[in-house]
Amino acid sequence: MLRNDYEGQICALARSLELIGERWTLMVIREVFLGRRRFSEMQENLGIARNVLTSRLQRLVDAGVLEKRPYSERPHREQYYLTEMGLELWPTIVTLTYWGDTYVPLPGGPPMILRHKGDCGGVINDRRVCEKCGKELTVRESVATEGPGLKPALRELDRVGRVERSAA
Amino acid sequence: MLRNDYEGQICALARSLELIGERWTLMVIREVFLGRRRFSEMQENLGIARNVLTSRLQRLVDAGVLEKRPYSERPHREQYYLTEMGLELWPTIVTLTYWGDTYVPLPGGPPMILRHKGDCGGVINDRRVCEKCGKELTVRESVATEGPGLKPALRELDRVGRVERSAA
Repeated sequence: MLRNDYEGQICALARSLELIGERWTLMVIREVFLGRRRFSEMQENLGIARNVLTSRLQRLVDAGVLEKRPYSERPHREQYYLTEMGLELWPTIVTLTYWGDTYVPLPGGPPMILRHKGDCGGVINDRRVCEKCGKELTVRESVATEGPGLKPALRELDRVGRVERSAA
Repeated sequence: MLRNDYEGQICALARSLELIGERWTLMVIREVFLGRRRFSEMQENLGIARNVLTSRLQRLVDAGVLEKRPYSERPHREQYYLTEMGLELWPTIVTLTYWGDTYVPLPGGPPMILRHKGDCGGVINDRRVCEKCGKELTVRESVATEGPGLKPALRELDRVGRVERSAA
């Protein structure tokens, strides 16, 4: 056990949250799901402090959710991959993403849409079933595609950034 | 927005975690799912500090996940109910519970098993489908029942408690 936040709780939810319930942890896992496997990519995309990212990655490796594999020998560089245990967090990421898009929506709609990979291309619902062909899907059969809300949200981020810069 | 932990992230997962990603928050929501609606019940069952529980409950009410309703006038007492937005966190609780029981299992097996309420009684899988009748279920059609791991886990907690007491 890495630590024991929820001592005395006989509950699988508590045991899950011991491993992945810390601030930033699910966001780090999302990065790896989206193919950002290197420390520098994650750090840049999340805007997270380096020491926090280091600690989150180490705990996920210790817990068996991520594994490190080298991609360069000189200099020695590693990237992070999801283990089977990590890949099986996909259902949780799917349900939480749907919940956020439903109850805390962006004005332009979802920024990302999960689709059945390959020829089908159907939208994946929150039970991980393809709405087009009806198949029950795994993470390996899914692909994240751009949704209608992405471009408006990027423009808004850029606008806010410009306002902040001009106010400075 | 209650606060902004994940500023600059255009992502429904980040928006969800802003609301329910804090330590203890999903455990508090689980309490209400299991019918523990009063502050004192939750506080006793979770063993959480009173000020932390107060702050978590207030944020969940502000976010629209829980609502307070009076159950006594003199003295004035309130209990907590899940809103529709709160009930829709059930899929996330289901997926995280299955993940915990799979990858961080108790020696005796799952302490809790979700079943299709009523005559069917089939086990609910992690897509919230009844394994017996095949129906796609909502939270209102589910019931939490005792699993094989509960009694051994309670005995173990009791044993550890006794060891700690005898060491004191």
